[in-house]
Amino acid sequence: MENWLTKRAKLDPNKTALIIEHSDFTFSELNSTVQLCAKKLHNYIHQGERAALFISNSFNGYIAILALQQIGAEIVFLNSRLSSDELQFQINDSAAKICLVDDSSDYHNINSVDTNKFLLSDILSMKPDKSFKPVEEFDNDDVTSIMYTSGTSGRPKGVLQTFGNHFYSAIGTSLNLGINDKDSWVLTVPLFHISGFSIMMRSLIYGIPVYLITDFNEEYINKVLANERATIISLVPTMLKRLLNNLPTGKHYNDHFKCVFLGGGPIDNWTLLRCDMLNIPVIQSYGMTETASNVVALNFRDADRKVGSSGQPLFPVNLRISNSDSEGVGDIEIKAPNVAKGYLNRQDLFDKKTTADGFYKTGDIGYLDDENFLYVKGRKDDMIISGGENIYPEEIENIYSKLSGIENIFVIGIPNDDWGEVPVAYVMLADDAYLTGEDLIGFGREKMAHYKVPKEFRLVKGVPRTASGKVLRRKFGDIKYKQI
Amino acid sequence: MENWLTKRAKLDPNKTALIIEHSDFTFSELNSTVQLCAKKLHNYIHQGERAALFISNSFNGYIAILALQQIGAEIVFLNSRLSSDELQFQINDSAAKICLVDDSSDYHNINSVDTNKFLLSDILSMKPDKSFKPVEEFDNDDVTSIMYTSGTSGRPKGVLQTFGNHFYSAIGTSLNLGINDKDSWVLTVPLFHISGFSIMMRSLIYGIPVYLITDFNEEYINKVLANERATIISLVPTMLKRLLNNLPTGKHYNDHFKCVFLGGGPIDNWTLLRCDMLNIPVIQSYGMTETASNVVALNFRDADRKVGSSGQPLFPVNLRISNSDSEGVGDIEIKAPNVAKGYLNRQDLFDKKTTADGFYKTGDIGYLDDENFLYVKGRKDDMIISGGENIYPEEIENIYSKLSGIENIFVIGIPNDDWGEVPVAYVMLADDAYLTGEDLIGFGREKMAHYKVPKEFRLVKGVPRTASGKVLRRKFGDIKYKQI
Repeated sequence: MENWLTKRAKLDPNKTALIIEHSDFTFSELNSTVQLCAKKLHNYIHQGERAALFISNSFNGYIAILALQQIGAEIVFLNSRLSSDELQFQINDSAAKICLVDDSSDYHNINSVDTNKFLLSDILSMKPDKSFKPVEEFDNDDVTSIMYTSGTSGRPKGVLQTFGNHFYSAIGTSLNLGINDKDSWVLTVPLFHISGFSIMMRSLIYGIPVYLITDFNEEYINKVLANERATIISLVPTMLKRLLNNLPTGKHYNDHFKCVFLGGGPIDNWTLLRCDMLNIPVIQSYGMTETASNVVALNFRDADRKVGSSGQPLFPVNLRISNSDSEGVGDIEIKAPNVAKGYLNRQDLFDKKTTADGFYKTGDIGYLDDENFLYVKGRKDDMIISGGENIYPEEIENIYSKLSGIENIFVIGIPNDDWGEVPVAYVMLADDAYLTGEDLIGFGREKMAHYKVPKEFRLVKGVPRTASGKVLRRKFGDIKYKQI
Repeated sequence: MENWLTKRAKLDPNKTALIIEHSDFTFSELNSTVQLCAKKLHNYIHQGERAALFISNSFNGYIAILALQQIGAEIVFLNSRLSSDELQFQINDSAAKICLVDDSSDYHNINSVDTNKFLLSDILSMKPDKSFKPVEEFDNDDVTSIMYTSGTSGRPKGVLQTFGNHFYSAIGTSLNLGINDKDSWVLTVPLFHISGFSIMMRSLIYGIPVYLITDFNEEYINKVLANERATIISLVPTMLKRLLNNLPTGKHYNDHFKCVFLGGGPIDNWTLLRCDMLNIPVIQSYGMTETASNVVALNFRDADRKVGSSGQPLFPVNLRISNSDSEGVGDIEIKAPNVAKGYLNRQDLFDKKTTADGFYKTGDIGYLDDENFLYVKGRKDDMIISGGENIYPEEIENIYSKLSGIENIFVIGIPNDDWGEVPVAYVMLADDAYLTGEDLIGFGREKMAHYKVPKEFRLVKGVPRTASGKVLRRKFGDIKYKQI
């Protein structure tokens, strides 16, 4: 296919492409800005080379991403929450020739990394390479972005995402949501994450504006959603809750608002109910870096009757459950044109996650109901086997999280002579909560099979997490706790 | 990708897929019907083999097409207007193992063709092959349909259309029109033509209903458009005019009606004006069998300021003008994932139409304006070169067709010692028309450069055409005429 940015600038030159604070850019203006940036960067980076990006959700970051695409360089997205060591590993592993650093980001950790760094603000003063020409085509098989999955075990792997991955991802979503040229997408999730970058690609493919939010300020975002013609916003559950908590009573989102596109794990029913009352449709979804954003989505029309489901696999996505138990629960496997090409330098690991007939083993456990709706039970690695029964920590966590006084709860399995493994819980309680271990066990026995009820409750102040916020259950052994 | 029909039946089992007269079929019902038909046909045809279809726009024809896709057989679409000899050539050339014949079609010509024929009504009484399983995947690179292009010169060539061709064609259109799940498409163009078959594929890909019209009855179609929730209809200009002529004064199409999707050549301004007055948006388009339907479309928002244009190349389509003259007019060339795989048994001819950098030479002449809107001037083969000037017959024809009394006019070039070639016109006049050759020349001189005005006007009763209605200019030498 023709270069998406130059193509879109030809199709819709005068249409708004990007809105950031009080500035609007048409696709034609966006294209000109990006091409100038590409001309300047072309002195330091060329087609087929890799450039790392250490950016926040800024205008400069947005332009730099698109400029690297115009050059035909592969973009290595660095998570700005990483430690210096982690950053150094990804820079080395990807052999990135340069590293572009956003002025507005907290660049303390990148400072000590050994690499060829440029501040984005310094690009302005570079001399443009007048001979530069943007790539003519975006080939479906060409890698355009590399995102490291922190994973919950082992070293991070660079996921190789192609133009085809992003295209089919965008198309799966448009066929599901019915996108038209009056739509627009609010981008407040990180640009360096697939959830943010995929919105940029959708903007080019659909020809719709992006509202780029630089900081997660609830009041400001609610104003955008109430007063502007913003139709879709991507959020994770905590962001959604913060927006709802901040929304003044009686205030509603604009009449054209279509939906909250929700990723990043399950949402509680209370929040869904609040959204329902406020007339805010929520599309729950399931996806990962390796599938270039969501592959499964639950429409609002099914939300009521499919509580707990992530929805149906999108049109281009073939999803199946393998090695299922008697209740149909098994490994979630995916075959789709949006499944990534592989892992950088570790194709062996990606091949291990691919079945002989070409399905990607997500490592998640779940089941499909008789109407083909997916229910995700959790990570396979997290599954506890106790007395021959499979126990999914997330299921237990979801039940306990509804108990007043519990702020956070995580369940892992510990070795046990009688049962092989038994579940134990790590809990954080609210300041004013008064809950004994007995209370907690009693609550659990009312709500679930006895073998699922944690045998022990450990009071903690926090749990170890990865840079992207994933809980590192394998490191729970190191936490100091008080048994209650 | 997963098999589109079974996938859609899983995603939208209870949604209407097909409406024919007073019967509705959901995607689940459609799938069951198609699978049963496939089971029965599987006794006679298998994956990878070819089956020819001689069908009209009937329910049985619709089901047969989808059933062959489920088997994984390549479908050879026969134009029901072809002569016996032409049908025999296509049956032999494609080595079709069986030929399915629609009961409701006029099967006089297919009767004498030597092939393994089955009447569609006879499938009902066949015994189903219980071991049959539908193909699991529709591979982008696999051929699913073969349509012979009658062309205007030489032998018909079987165009090899892949699943990928149809997918990208559908996506290009959805990105342009902004399709959502409330849309529906009225199918009244032939099923055996890319314009009809592509609507069937869109229905599966978008998950929207098709109103299948068996006969072109203006009154009935206008009722469907006025009273049902039909949002889009594909038409050629003559069909649109017939609908407008039949629409009772004061009658309008339903409130959800979106547009007439117009293919098959240019439309006159008077008809566009009528549509405008009746609030009927018209999307003009440009495409061909070799590009699996339209590749260029003109939106209603641009219709007024881009009169005469076919619109902009769709998002997945790269279109350029090569060998252009000083005015920018040249060969229309296309690179897009919806360009066909080739010609059956004549890959050499397809390769000849493909440039070294992978563009398909359409054989059409035209130009792009400064906003990337395409203007098609006509077929390169039809172009007349007179005294070094390029003359496009369609341009002259369009001008003369506005003259009252002229029913039809076609212009070709004839050899001339002084000028190389000169244009002459073949005209059909209305019964009550009184126009002399002098009148016609006078009119032309007022409207166009003198070298474009036909040197001679030949009164004829009709012109030779191909089965699909294309004018066969190279056979004009055989027409009996009277000079006026």
